[in-house]
Amino acid sequence: MELQNIIDQSIEAQSKEASATVTETLLLNKTLKIEPLTPEAFKPFGDLIDKDNSEFFMINNGSTRRYHRMADVDVADNGGEPIISIFQATPLQYPLSIKMMERHPLGSQAFVPLLGNPYLILVAPKDDSPNPDAIRAFISNGKQGVNYHKGVWHHPVLVLKEEDQFLVVDRAGPGNNCDEVYFSDKVQVELTLDDLVSI
Amino acid sequence: MELQNIIDQSIEAQSKEASATVTETLLLNKTLKIEPLTPEAFKPFGDLIDKDNSEFFMINNGSTRRYHRMADVDVADNGGEPIISIFQATPLQYPLSIKMMERHPLGSQAFVPLLGNPYLILVAPKDDSPNPDAIRAFISNGKQGVNYHKGVWHHPVLVLKEEDQFLVVDRAGPGNNCDEVYFSDKVQVELTLDDLVSI
Repeated sequence: MELQNIIDQSIEAQSKEASATVTETLLLNKTLKIEPLTPEAFKPFGDLIDKDNSEFFMINNGSTRRYHRMADVDVADNGGEPIISIFQATPLQYPLSIKMMERHPLGSQAFVPLLGNPYLILVAPKDDSPNPDAIRAFISNGKQGVNYHKGVWHHPVLVLKEEDQFLVVDRAGPGNNCDEVYFSDKVQVELTLDDLVSI
Repeated sequence: MELQNIIDQSIEAQSKEASATVTETLLLNKTLKIEPLTPEAFKPFGDLIDKDNSEFFMINNGSTRRYHRMADVDVADNGGEPIISIFQATPLQYPLSIKMMERHPLGSQAFVPLLGNPYLILVAPKDDSPNPDAIRAFISNGKQGVNYHKGVWHHPVLVLKEEDQFLVVDRAGPGNNCDEVYFSDKVQVELTLDDLVSI
């Protein structure tokens, strides 16, 4: 028993020390709140591509509604050209520790869901580097697409279903169009799915 | 009975006369054959946006396939800018008599189905006016999108389901970007759904 007591005390001491160290050195420790995606909330970051939040006019002799110009493709900087691609993505593991953000300094990037599945969107305001304390998390209802404005920090695709798909409209052309910033270990930002009632 | 004979003969004579008149004056009388949509068949008219017919490479640390650059958005002529819209369309009545075609002389126009429903595509080669005898009809499997190249004659949206939807990437900007050409009454081009086995 004496030996067991020593071991227990040792473990307890180590645990307290580790906990104290983490608390002292962490600069940020937060869990993101997932918000619904609305044009107003997303406005600082880009456009919502969502016919249920858009006006339309009739074309084609009255047979077609045109929900016009929900997003502008802004990719002309430095000789860029707009291109159309498809992304097929795999879900990451949750709870997810947010380790990095990226931005496209030369162009906008639009994602429109092709299979109707809800997915998550993480953004941070335009700045020299992404402010981890300013990250916002949104959930799309599966019909809503987003168009990140040029230079807006965002997390790579965050799908919730296997082999989910998006139409992507972004830029091809000369120059570096992807900056990635990795956060320090002292920054802990976590994304959980605990508060998602229904997906 | 004599009276009935006279009436019958009269009707028969009128019918023959009408038929002869139509046959003499018609310049074209055809029913379109609906073809499956393949990159090769559609190549003279535009790009297929179809991941099942495309190469991909991995991005996002291996979590995402990028089916890259399936179409170029070609809208820069005369100060044009690329924009993203949604079309919601109603089916026309079949058999459909093809009365007109349109083209966008200043830009490409991409249609990508958002609800997974098959739809029809009618195109004619680039020329001063659409040649009704050169119209081709295709059916998309509901996952395949198309990007009409600049100046390719095409029919307005031909959906087969109520309130079908497409993401559309085309042009905003100065200048006329829509030419419509109506066919003479002597041209009869019909599109039927008779040979579509399964939709």
